[in-house]
Amino acid sequence: MATKVDLNSDMGEGFGPWPMGDDAALLDVVTSANIACGWHAGDANVMARTMRMAVEKGVGIGAHPGFADLQGFGRRRINLTAEELTNLVTYQLGAAQAVARSVGGQVRHLKLHGALSNMASEDAEIARACYTAALSVDPDIVIMVLAETAQARVVQELGCNWAGEIFADRAYEDDATLVDRKKPGAVLHDPDLAAERILRMVEAGAIITESGKHIPTRIDTICLHGDTPEAVQMAKVVRARLKAAGIELKPF
Amino acid sequence: MATKVDLNSDMGEGFGPWPMGDDAALLDVVTSANIACGWHAGDANVMARTMRMAVEKGVGIGAHPGFADLQGFGRRRINLTAEELTNLVTYQLGAAQAVARSVGGQVRHLKLHGALSNMASEDAEIARACYTAALSVDPDIVIMVLAETAQARVVQELGCNWAGEIFADRAYEDDATLVDRKKPGAVLHDPDLAAERILRMVEAGAIITESGKHIPTRIDTICLHGDTPEAVQMAKVVRARLKAAGIELKPF
Amino acid sequence: MATKVDLNSDMGEGFGPWPMGDDAALLDVVTSANIACGWHAGDANVMARTMRMAVEKGVGIGAHPGFADLQGFGRRRINLTAEELTNLVTYQLGAAQAVARSVGGQVRHLKLHGALSNMASEDAEIARACYTAALSVDPDIVIMVLAETAQARVVQELGCNWAGEIFADRAYEDDATLVDRKKPGAVLHDPDLAAERILRMVEAGAIITESGKHIPTRIDTICLHGDTPEAVQMAKVVRARLKAAGIELKPF
Amino acid sequence: MATKVDLNSDMGEGFGPWPMGDDAALLDVVTSANIACGWHAGDANVMARTMRMAVEKGVGIGAHPGFADLQGFGRRRINLTAEELTNLVTYQLGAAQAVARSVGGQVRHLKLHGALSNMASEDAEIARACYTAALSVDPDIVIMVLAETAQARVVQELGCNWAGEIFADRAYEDDATLVDRKKPGAVLHDPDLAAERILRMVEAGAIITESGKHIPTRIDTICLHGDTPEAVQMAKVVRARLKAAGIELKPF
Repeated sequence: MATKVDLNSDMGEGFGPWPMGDDAALLDVVTSANIACGWHAGDANVMARTMRMAVEKGVGIGAHPGFADLQGFGRRRINLTAEELTNLVTYQLGAAQAVARSVGGQVRHLKLHGALSNMASEDAEIARACYTAALSVDPDIVIMVLAETAQARVVQELGCNWAGEIFADRAYEDDATLVDRKKPGAVLHDPDLAAERILRMVEAGAIITESGKHIPTRIDTICLHGDTPEAVQMAKVVRARLKAAGIELKPF
Repeated sequence: MATKVDLNSDMGEGFGPWPMGDDAALLDVVTSANIACGWHAGDANVMARTMRMAVEKGVGIGAHPGFADLQGFGRRRINLTAEELTNLVTYQLGAAQAVARSVGGQVRHLKLHGALSNMASEDAEIARACYTAALSVDPDIVIMVLAETAQARVVQELGCNWAGEIFADRAYEDDATLVDRKKPGAVLHDPDLAAERILRMVEAGAIITESGKHIPTRIDTICLHGDTPEAVQMAKVVRARLKAAGIELKPF
Repeated sequence: MATKVDLNSDMGEGFGPWPMGDDAALLDVVTSANIACGWHAGDANVMARTMRMAVEKGVGIGAHPGFADLQGFGRRRINLTAEELTNLVTYQLGAAQAVARSVGGQVRHLKLHGALSNMASEDAEIARACYTAALSVDPDIVIMVLAETAQARVVQELGCNWAGEIFADRAYEDDATLVDRKKPGAVLHDPDLAAERILRMVEAGAIITESGKHIPTRIDTICLHGDTPEAVQMAKVVRARLKAAGIELKPF
Repeated sequence: MATKVDLNSDMGEGFGPWPMGDDAALLDVVTSANIACGWHAGDANVMARTMRMAVEKGVGIGAHPGFADLQGFGRRRINLTAEELTNLVTYQLGAAQAVARSVGGQVRHLKLHGALSNMASEDAEIARACYTAALSVDPDIVIMVLAETAQARVVQELGCNWAGEIFADRAYEDDATLVDRKKPGAVLHDPDLAAERILRMVEAGAIITESGKHIPTRIDTICLHGDTPEAVQMAKVVRARLKAAGIELKPF
């Protein structure tokens, strides 16, 4: 049974005049922050501000690279060559490292964003290009991967530091994929139910699917959202429930 | 009398489908390359390609950050706060470092681009914000500055590594500023005249103005251009003339 | 004494995933909407959504062109040639016209945004380039100008349709310029005070400065803001106060 | 047998500091110009310059909208909703109309660019969304379609003005699709062979495939390229050959 787990959330997703989410509130809940790197969101000023807050609150900093698509917020699939993926990750991670250091922090982990993450969870070639690039920049970086996907297979093959992630608010199919958002019940809205379910998964060391099936997996971190007041509320409830059950909440 | 000098040129200034200049030819002429960092030109793929070529040809790699203004190529003045300048330089230099390492190289120097350079040559506050940021990322980096400008005063005040730069193809006023491009003779077009003039400056350790006045200054590097076939030709002639005179051409 | 006046506000200032302001609420208050055209904010989807709402609520549609600077939200000054200004306005107005028609509306007016407006209020050349371009696209378009600035002088010189604008929440100096934001009292925060002051100005047909001086001017429209809940509240109070005083609120 | 045909080429594909192709030379060869509209290439200044040249040379002006992807030059597939496609085409066509009028011309036709065109040639839904949007902006506009694709089926279903297009330099399969670029012979490099083949197609009123099969189709225009000196040369040879054979070259 797990005795500790990390809580992560995407943040630093504003751009120029546009804020997004309540990063300050969320930084009191999570132990790791995945910070956008300027291509799909998060210009250099947003990055510096967000990372400074993370340092002040002792939250682990992660680079969260995505496609060069501000309008689409990195959620539109773009086909790139392995070389282009390498350069995308290298550039964004390098930028994130420098900005993190300039505010007294350091980039500890990397998590792919949006459509790039989706593509890497289906296609090992894409995951491999991205993760190899990240490890070439920092051999010790922790790669955060979606449990039981191609992402997870690639990090195990690479033998690098990694953290397996499950979602607090998404239902799972019996093959460990997420239930399609269009289906009823795909997204959990009740904070208490979500918190209870996550606690059982962490204690079981397994994804528990909608049908009740247990899929044993390494659970190092739980993905929370913070783009709405409801999401921040759920994040708080999940944190409180895990803590009450004696699970230690700390960065991997 | 100087016995060696560096030759530098801006490059990696293509973007996506658009090339610019003949970087391959220029890399056979210069000893240092100032490589655009993605905001005004030079996306991550262009950066990687250009840096790989520089590594292969033994040319020193420099980060060449500019304003976030692709359409204006970083040549339009944008007023930023000191904090925004800090983040601009930190981000672009960090990205350049990571891409350089990914192709087996390293960023040795930094030179400001376009309007940002112009503003920093007039305003010590701007130069200080940019250079302090760069030194915070890499305390050993060499800052390339326009000789006898606010840029040069700031690096001396900071006590960091620096290289003083003069132009191969621009005439100087008696106060060490460049002759306005609108005036006749502001830009030298004859490669032989330019080469001869530069040789005299290097040998004298001084800027020689249009009127013939000598302004003693530290000349570590000469700025060449490569955006037209004529420019590449001038670069070759300057190189040959200096070499013939026994000046060693090597990175600072 | 004026018997009617228009109320205008900037809107459609979201971009991609980022909303801005409460356009739906504001459209119940104003009679004219200045809608961003994609360069500093407001992509084509945001434009279409905002214009559709304006059509449904009977609010007049205006094009609100700005500099090509998303990160800076068009608030950073960029020096352009007259030809570049012409193309900027022509392009954005043409795009706005087509999108407006596609949702059953039409562009009735044009107002410059942010730094472009500031520059045009100081420099008649800039105002002239922009307004001439707009009139070349639509000779009947109403140009919305800041009262008693170079903008206002240029439209009178051009002899075109125009609407003079004053601010609901900004104090005026005795030369009709706005009190610098850094000075106390520059921005009015009390909705009732602002509403009372605006009513007096509309009734007097004059800007009433901080010192109490009256500067007679043509007041066709009042600029309201909607980027914060407080701003929307002030807009409502101003509207109610004018209505209660018998001023008819309708598009110019 | 056809007695006249139009020659078209993409142009105005520079952006900011970056030129692309020799538009001036190409405008002496073609009778219709497909001009980029600012999202994948061709900012407002490039558009105005290119359209002014087209007007001077009597070449028909077409809007050439593409995805919002400068780095990818609109060649990367992006999945958009029908509503987003509508807004994309509406915005870009409106902008093109205004710029064309500002230089004394008018937009006569529309042709989709790059990946958007590829997707519309495979998927009638995409073609329909784009073309319906264009016709809503201008009911008389001529839609240029790739012969024998979903694009062609949709314009016939819509009953609008259209022009069928074949390629001067691409080989065709027996199902009227283009031979994959990876196969030998997919792209014709010999100007004389290409010119001869195109003449036979125009005279036959049919696509002639690699195997020699004739697929009758309406040939209103021939697509030429201009991005390389070789391409411009081929364009000239094709033009000369058609003219020598008595085919009149004029806008549809």
